[in-house]
Amino acid sequence: VVTDAGSTKREIYRAAREGLPQEVHFIGGHPMAGSHQRGFDFARDDLFQGAPYALISDAEIDLSNARRADAMSRLHSLVEAIGGKPVLLTAERHDHAVARISQAPQLLATALALAAASAKDTDAMALAGSGFADMTRLAASHWSVWEDILSTNHDEIGNALKEFEDRLGVISKAMATRDSAVMESMFRAANDFIRRVNEKKALNV
Amino acid sequence: VVTDAGSTKREIYRAAREGLPQEVHFIGGHPMAGSHQRGFDFARDDLFQGAPYALISDAEIDLSNARRADAMSRLHSLVEAIGGKPVLLTAERHDHAVARISQAPQLLATALALAAASAKDTDAMALAGSGFADMTRLAASHWSVWEDILSTNHDEIGNALKEFEDRLGVISKAMATRDSAVMESMFRAANDFIRRVNEKKALNV
Repeated sequence: VVTDAGSTKREIYRAAREGLPQEVHFIGGHPMAGSHQRGFDFARDDLFQGAPYALISDAEIDLSNARRADAMSRLHSLVEAIGGKPVLLTAERHDHAVARISQAPQLLATALALAAASAKDTDAMALAGSGFADMTRLAASHWSVWEDILSTNHDEIGNALKEFEDRLGVISKAMATRDSAVMESMFRAANDFIRRVNEKKALNV
Repeated sequence: VVTDAGSTKREIYRAAREGLPQEVHFIGGHPMAGSHQRGFDFARDDLFQGAPYALISDAEIDLSNARRADAMSRLHSLVEAIGGKPVLLTAERHDHAVARISQAPQLLATALALAAASAKDTDAMALAGSGFADMTRLAASHWSVWEDILSTNHDEIGNALKEFEDRLGVISKAMATRDSAVMESMFRAANDFIRRVNEKKALNV
């Protein structure tokens, strides 16, 4: 069994299909853990505890091959043994989802830090509280880590940014026209999504 | 001395100027503490510890009136006594800064939650990790709290959203044209801002 821990999956699958012998089972993995910090100094022995861990599975291939199914099952146990929560999905679904929950959010944090860094940032820096710290934590991420991620999931990240820009456009317009009914319904829909995410998390623990 | 703890300051100053007798000193306050949660159940005795606390001061008025200067000094001591870090600035500078570090970020979190809530959100919810939780925590904020804030700082929030949308537009374009030089320089500028914010925080503690 060969696995990896990269942040995008379609490209590595293409490479694995071309480069690896038939009898080697490549099953990609992506632990949704870690931080904007890097290096051995930030190593933690509880890094994977409770964190989702994507395992890339193609139902058709996986089920039709007993050795491959066995490889997947061993990897599944390994992830659970280190405290992670295995999530099985295809490379395509993985890359679609992480563009929305990880990669586009990274770029928003970068854009937000840059907007705050512009003119009159002394007041902003003096007043910034925990909410701003949360929203810009990812802006400390290193380019060396992100260069490959952005390049290998380029299309899905572009789509995710567009979807975000659409939602933000509706909010911007509601602000400009002082349409508080639209704004209220967006707040409520966002509240509802966060509630569902938290309920799901509570069930998984 | 009369003070308040509202999130926007220009409008309350207009009201105070019109409604309060001359001999009453109104000095607005805004603790940059709290969370998206509300109610007595979430009360904490260390809420203000280390948090910036804006005190609205107009240098011309404040310095020309001994009783007003005294009122400000008493409020300053009170904020320090509860562990807050007083930040003196005018209502205009306050409203400009909080639009950028608090109110526009609130709307980004709402937009991001809504974008993630759209189609195929089951995968997104299963994979969401700590980065996504940080970026959407504010999306749980209650409309009842935000309605007045958005209405009374409407112009500055609109400007802040536009500045953010401009930065995001540059990032989106760099993604679309695969211009990694632009992207790298934006990552580095954002890294630099976060480093400065953290250094400033370290100095203030």
